Amino acid sequence: MTALDTRTLADRSQDGVRSRTITWTDPAQSRFRGRSMNGLERLLAIQRGELAPPPAATLLGMDLDEVELGRTVFSMLADEVHENPMGTMHGGIVAALVDTAMGCALSSRLPADAGFTTLELKTNYVRAITQATGRVYAEGTVVHSGGRVATTEARVHDSNGTLYAHATSTCLILRGNR
Amino acid sequence: MTALDTRTLADRSQDGVRSRTITWTDPAQSRFRGRSMNGLERLLAIQRGELAPPPAATLLGMDLDEVELGRTVFSMLADEVHENPMGTMHGGIVAALVDTAMGCALSSRLPADAGFTTLELKTNYVRAITQATGRVYAEGTVVHSGGRVATTEARVHDSNGTLYAHATSTCLILRGNR
Amino acid sequence: MTALDTRTLADRSQDGVRSRTITWTDPAQSRFRGRSMNGLERLLAIQRGELAPPPAATLLGMDLDEVELGRTVFSMLADEVHENPMGTMHGGIVAALVDTAMGCALSSRLPADAGFTTLELKTNYVRAITQATGRVYAEGTVVHSGGRVATTEARVHDSNGTLYAHATSTCLILRGNR
Amino acid sequence: MTALDTRTLADRSQDGVRSRTITWTDPAQSRFRGRSMNGLERLLAIQRGELAPPPAATLLGMDLDEVELGRTVFSMLADEVHENPMGTMHGGIVAALVDTAMGCALSSRLPADAGFTTLELKTNYVRAITQATGRVYAEGTVVHSGGRVATTEARVHDSNGTLYAHATSTCLILRGNR
Repeated sequence: MTALDTRTLADRSQDGVRSRTITWTDPAQSRFRGRSMNGLERLLAIQRGELAPPPAATLLGMDLDEVELGRTVFSMLADEVHENPMGTMHGGIVAALVDTAMGCALSSRLPADAGFTTLELKTNYVRAITQATGRVYAEGTVVHSGGRVATTEARVHDSNGTLYAHATSTCLILRGNR
Repeated sequence: MTALDTRTLADRSQDGVRSRTITWTDPAQSRFRGRSMNGLERLLAIQRGELAPPPAATLLGMDLDEVELGRTVFSMLADEVHENPMGTMHGGIVAALVDTAMGCALSSRLPADAGFTTLELKTNYVRAITQATGRVYAEGTVVHSGGRVATTEARVHDSNGTLYAHATSTCLILRGNR
Repeated sequence: MTALDTRTLADRSQDGVRSRTITWTDPAQSRFRGRSMNGLERLLAIQRGELAPPPAATLLGMDLDEVELGRTVFSMLADEVHENPMGTMHGGIVAALVDTAMGCALSSRLPADAGFTTLELKTNYVRAITQATGRVYAEGTVVHSGGRVATTEARVHDSNGTLYAHATSTCLILRGNR
Repeated sequence: MTALDTRTLADRSQDGVRSRTITWTDPAQSRFRGRSMNGLERLLAIQRGELAPPPAATLLGMDLDEVELGRTVFSMLADEVHENPMGTMHGGIVAALVDTAMGCALSSRLPADAGFTTLELKTNYVRAITQATGRVYAEGTVVHSGGRVATTEARVHDSNGTLYAHATSTCLILRGNR
């Protein structure tokens, strides 16, 4: 698996001290290049590698696996660097994964001149994610989309379909002023 | 400010491609060294630099500013690497900051042989955080702590006291089996 | 429809002052009669009219329409008595409907000597419910059920399938001490 | 206490069957009479008995105890009629109490031609409320109020200050179109 190889190559470990180099692209470039694309086109361009993903996705190691109108799947390989003091994936990093999957599911339905902002996000954690879990997948979908407000939901599972977390979110849609 | 200096030194930018090297410590070492400390002692040891922070805190750039029984303050310097596609701090990274402040506020009240797991976390986002915001501070406190379940809350503000986000969380306390 | 008939008969209106008489059964009787039933048996007994519904269900006018293992449907006829100052169904009454549907979905999977308590409930309101909406239905299901903690979700729709609200909840399961 | 007297007079009990008569006022009258008042004036008029409370408040037995700019206290006497199958106050009825306190706290800051709608409400339940608890008080306050969106919070306690529940909510402000 590519991500695993990258991890092995990038990390340098000595006496319990490890380091990794994160590489990302100036996000202003992506915003400029994608300015006339609608949400779905932007996501497809990221998936094809034509548009750089946002820095937060790179920092956390989130990959865009699937995108269609109103639905995305993002995944992440559970990694030591995601660990909280209990040795499991930090709840905030799980929240970042579901927020990304849900926000992009909504974005995939928005025209070029619209944007959105997340008003609130609730995540339920039902099982701890550890390095042994491997890759986890967040499927985000739009539950309701009105003129001003949308709601979305997501579920996080592993490759066997075991559920780890689920979430719902409220977003405010910003029209004509992205 | 130290974090800013580190950022300047660590980043290498060329044609819009930037990179940064993250360095962390094997978290199993911290868990072993801190195994007989109670929650407050562990946090104070991290604050004094005697115990390594968990990898997720290092990856995201979270600093422990204050800790006392039932209350912590964690902060983070808003950075390009935290950005979502809109150019603001990713909601999941804000969630990570509040989850850390709230979880450690609870942890500060737990004995050495107890732990906890976050059952759910809701974050309300009231203002976008950008690099211009500078450093943001999450103050986490324990609202209710019973035998099995605790609830916590957090507020995120900048150095002027402007509010950016607030959150509440439910945690399950695990006794005698950390 | 029975509920409508009852409403017409029970209400007395004069100069804008209306009154209605609510009739319920001592809930201690139901708890005593249902003490050896498991959760599903209790719900089926309520549905058949052999066990009195809890007082809150009577006060709010909630009907149990469907019950099976891990899933229930409760409904309510939107009524003037449910109105908030804006003339729509009070958000708390919608919350009561989803809490009932979700809690009973979980209850339907519990043995006679187990109970549960709701730790938290989040409801998203996506459309206002008015008297013109007619009857609204909340379908509650169990998302995750572990040894100590369960999560549930619900959706509220009208008879045309239009969505009005959705919710998720975390419950603590109490074994052997109901 | 008035509420207790009313309860004793209104209830008729025979063989475990109890009944109570609820009396309310056509809410269209209150909306008409209060149409030129701002939110605070409307709440003060309800408190003085000059404007009828909304039907849901009457049905559930909610009293407006205190109101000032951005803050309200509503209370409710725990009653058999509020009970869920476990014999405690139904979580949805607690949600109605906090939703009322929070929504009216926001309303107290709105001009006559503005309204709001609740987008989402999360309640944490930390202790069961029973008839032995007596009267419970929900203090609702505004956390953030922007041009389009506001957030609010509430805490429910008894007359000794013991905490039973707390909540946060997101509201969409509707200007010039109430």
